[in-house]
This record gives sequence, structure tokens and C-alpha cells, in this order.
Amino acid sequence: MADHIRIGIAGHGNLGRGVEAAIEKNPDMQLAGIYTRRSPEQLTPRLASTPVFSMGVLPEHVDRIDVLILCGGSKEDLPRQGPELAALFNTVDSFDTHARIPEYFAAVDKPARANRKTALISAGWDPGMFSINRVLSEALLPDGETYTFWGDGLSQGHSDAVRRVPGVAGAVQYTRPVPEAVELVRNGARPVLSTREKHRRECFVVLEEGADAEAVRKAIVTMPDYFADYDTTVNFISADELARDHQAMVHGGFVIRSGNTSAENTQVVEYSLKLGSNPEFTASVLVAYARAVHRMHQLGQYGAITVFDVPPGMLSPRSAEQLRAEYL
Amino acid sequence: MADHIRIGIAGHGNLGRGVEAAIEKNPDMQLAGIYTRRSPEQLTPRLASTPVFSMGVLPEHVDRIDVLILCGGSKEDLPRQGPELAALFNTVDSFDTHARIPEYFAAVDKPARANRKTALISAGWDPGMFSINRVLSEALLPDGETYTFWGDGLSQGHSDAVRRVPGVAGAVQYTRPVPEAVELVRNGARPVLSTREKHRRECFVVLEEGADAEAVRKAIVTMPDYFADYDTTVNFISADELARDHQAMVHGGFVIRSGNTSAENTQVVEYSLKLGSNPEFTASVLVAYARAVHRMHQLGQYGAITVFDVPPGMLSPRSAEQLRAEYL
Repeated sequence: MADHIRIGIAGHGNLGRGVEAAIEKNPDMQLAGIYTRRSPEQLTPRLASTPVFSMGVLPEHVDRIDVLILCGGSKEDLPRQGPELAALFNTVDSFDTHARIPEYFAAVDKPARANRKTALISAGWDPGMFSINRVLSEALLPDGETYTFWGDGLSQGHSDAVRRVPGVAGAVQYTRPVPEAVELVRNGARPVLSTREKHRRECFVVLEEGADAEAVRKAIVTMPDYFADYDTTVNFISADELARDHQAMVHGGFVIRSGNTSAENTQVVEYSLKLGSNPEFTASVLVAYARAVHRMHQLGQYGAITVFDVPPGMLSPRSAEQLRAEYL
Repeated sequence: MADHIRIGIAGHGNLGRGVEAAIEKNPDMQLAGIYTRRSPEQLTPRLASTPVFSMGVLPEHVDRIDVLILCGGSKEDLPRQGPELAALFNTVDSFDTHARIPEYFAAVDKPARANRKTALISAGWDPGMFSINRVLSEALLPDGETYTFWGDGLSQGHSDAVRRVPGVAGAVQYTRPVPEAVELVRNGARPVLSTREKHRRECFVVLEEGADAEAVRKAIVTMPDYFADYDTTVNFISADELARDHQAMVHGGFVIRSGNTSAENTQVVEYSLKLGSNPEFTASVLVAYARAVHRMHQLGQYGAITVFDVPPGMLSPRSAEQLRAEYL
């Protein structure tokens, strides 16, 4: 197994479990260990043979791991763990607080560079694959407009907001692109679209015993930031229906750019994802970027990087020769 | 204008004209000149101020051009011009004879490397953007299948084949993906599809005076390599209709990969293009890669490269800081 890329997983929520699954699909990789803040014995890995450790032993494991994938959250975990662990390991993370990316990049870059490590931040699908497509399609069609639509997808943040409404016993929220808007954009028009015209929101809510349905509905659809700017539908369902029909963490979306290469000719470029499991797909992206990080580290490219810095061929287990011969 | 990237165009067919148009859309670029094998005075550039030269003076113009975009054909022009000009200039080309790419890469790599030039081969949309998406989506979903569909699009090679049939005065051929096959793939099934099941072909034919329509139809639909393996429809139209309705060089297609990240979850990634003008879009891709080649040359990355070797951020006129702050 000496040639395998040895991956460590830091944090074992939905994303960490997705990384475990993804490593099984990549025969050039090996799961060196899962690192958790809980007691290691409380954690059940997918494979019984996977070693589980306390997060605290990581500094002693620097020689066991080629790339550490950080699976913590962007709000509490990564701002602290990212810079700390990038001083010890090559890392990949999915930091997704868009407004704070420059600050986070700088905080990770310094320790990574000082310790000759390579740290890729903000991988996943958005930020990540969608970001790449925004940059590429704008470079190909400088005279144009880019539109990002999300959904159909279960939004964790909006589901949580609905669950906090008094009278709600359980809930999920789906973000759905407005089909008419998507069609307009796909056909090469360059519409100016308001928030309401791009996406609608649909909630499935289980009421608490005796709660007033109309009051709950009104509290949801008028909620500032989350729902007030959208057309929102609220469906009341039973706890059984919620458990039976709304557990899948589906998501996806489109990045569409339409532009003109001359006065006469319109061109449309679209990238779309239809995801059966949002965390498993995000995890698969992180694992592919772990391969690239391992290689770029071997080439001496130290410091913080993003998906914009990684040549596509670096993500593939195949050689440059094979990619040229079979994939061009 | 000292900071502009100075672009030369070698060859002035549809692709070269597309490059002229694309440079007008990229304010960080400047068209240094068009180089032609015809008499320069016979050529009409889009802008009267654009200098036009004979191809023969190129060796004297090495200090006037940062990147030379080779707009010749893959059959006759590039196998000779590519290696010759990569000894003198940084180059970008759209060499698209898939089976001969490794040989062409080697032929261009040697002179480029020896003369410290950077030569990007086989850019465009297929090979090019589609190739990137085949590699990326396979890296993200190793357990899956990739499908490439072309069309709806006007195929130059197949149109030429129809025009060679006795009795045909004029013709165009459109390649169309079979909608049922596309839907199957998009929904995450992984069907095994024959050639016939993936694409159909539709011809619009103007008959010569007195030609036998049924004989022409039969000669087309049974033509080996080009049509025999497909369901082909032949429509007979007038010369006026051909001129009025079938001049646009539309094309496009999809790269779809569906795969499993676990036994439970299917994921689908799709990249699609809907092109009002095939040569203008291809030209826009070449121009964006010219920017990347100029930068990679400045960084000392010499020799032949492909789209697999270029980090996405290199294609954008924006700085790495701006891309991180606004596009991630």
C-alpha cells in the first residue's frame, strides 16, 4: 500500500461519512484514520477495520497522513482548525462562507507556506465546481451574463429556520429554480431577474398538537432574509410522511452563461448537477482534490490554493499520457 | 497598449475570422496581425486597421507577437505548421484528429521545449471543454459512466459527404442526439447505447435537375461510416430554402456522467453547449487559452500542453484575489 495516497478525515458528520464512502471508490487512496472530537469508541466507521482516533492525537500522526480532509463546519470549526492543521498537514476543506473566503485564505496560507504544506480551501460544488464554471464560462464569453440557480434541493439552513417557528414540530425546506426563468436564460436571453423570479421555496411542515396552521404559515412566509423575498408554499404533513418522504439530502443546480461572440451569434454554456446526496457529492469533490493536493505538494507548490489553481488533469488518477490519448 | 497580450492569427478561414471577433471582446488583448497564405491584399479584416501579412514573414515577426493562434485545419495545415511555428512562437491550436493527438503532441513539444516556448494543442470545445468535463466528472464520480452527445449541429464532414453523392446540387447535414437516450442518461440510468441509439442524422438536400430522389436518398442512408449505422432522414428542399434556412453553423452537445457515490445515491453531472456559431465559439476558447499560454510562458512552463494542464484561473483576465473574493 506504499503507493497509495493516505487520507485522514477530521470530523465525522455527514460530510466525513461521505469522504469514507468516496475513498472506497478510489483505489489509489487509503483511509489512514478518522479523527473525532467525540470519544473514538462512540464512532462507527463504514469499515470495521478503519482506525478511529481522538482529534488530539493528530500532531503525532503527521507521518501517517498525506492529505487531511477537514470535514468540520464553516461557522465554528474551520476558522480555527484550518489554520491550525495546515501547519501540520496538507489539507482540503469545504469552507463555504463566501464573504469570508479572502480572510480565511490568508489565515490558512501563512502557516501552510511557513511549513511547506499545500492547503486547498473551499472545495465542493458551490463553492467549487460551480465556481470553476463561473470563471471558465465568463472567460470564454466575456460579453455575457452568468446565472446560478440552486435546486431542486433540500436547504439545511432554511429547514432549520422553519423548525424554529413556534408550533412547528418538524420541517424541511426545498429550494426550487423557477422553470420559466431557467428556460429564458437557457434560450440565450439575458433577463434581469429578481430574487423572487429566480427561485421559489417549498416547505413541508409537521405541526405541534393544537398549533394554528395559518399562524405558522404566515410566520414562515413573512420571515425576513429567509422567506419574505420569495414565493413560498407551505404544505402541512404528518410526522410519518416527513420521515418517509423527506430524508434524502437531494440538491443540485445550474450555472448558465449566455453571451455573444459577435452581434449575430449567441452561445449558451451550462453546467448542471442533479445530486442524490449533497454531502456524498461534496465529499467526492474533496477526495478528488486531495489527489491534486498530494501531487501539487510533491511538485513544491506550497501555501493556500483554491480550485482555480488546480489543472484539471491533476484530479484524475490517470497519467497525462493516458488523458491525452483517451480523453481529449 | 504595452500591457496588452499581442495576438497573431495564422490562417483566415471561419476559425480565424472567429478569433478576430473574439479579440474584440477581450480588452486585455490586441490583434497584432493576420497572417495568410493568400495575397494579403485579398483579405478583408473585420477592422480596416488590422495589419495583414503573408505567412512567410512570420519568422521576422517573433518580437511583435506574444501568442500566435493557429487557425489552419487538422488534416493538412497543423501537422506541418504546429511544430514549425512552436519553435518561434507561443502557440494555441485546435488540432482535433483525436487518434493522432499523442503523435502531434510529441511533434510540437520538442521544438517548443528546445526554444523555450509554450504551445497549447487541441483547444476548442471537443477536444477542449468537453474533454475537461470528461476528466473532471470521472474524477468526481469514479464509479459511473460518461456519455458524450453531439448536436443539434451542422456537421461539415457529413455535409461534404452528402454533396459528393451523384444527383446532389447542395446539402447540409445535422447531427441530432436521440432525446430518449439523453433522458435516460440524465435520469441516472447507465444504459449501454449503440451508435444508432445515441444520434440520428438529418439531411437537407437540393437535387440536381432530373435527379432520382429515391436513388439519392438510398445512396445517402446506406453510405458506410457516415450514415449506414444511423437512422437518417433525407428532406428534399429548394436551393432557395437551403440558402435561406441552413447557413448558420449551429452546433453543441452534452457531456453527461452519472455515477454512484454509494449503493444508495446516484449523482448526475452535465455540461452542455448550445452554439449559435461553432467556429466563433471555438475561436473564443482559443483566445481564452492564449491568455493562459501567455501567463504560463511568463512562469517558465515551456513545451507542449493541453487543456488538462491549465488551471481555470489562468483563463480569466481577473486577478487571483478578485476570483477568490467574487467567484468562489
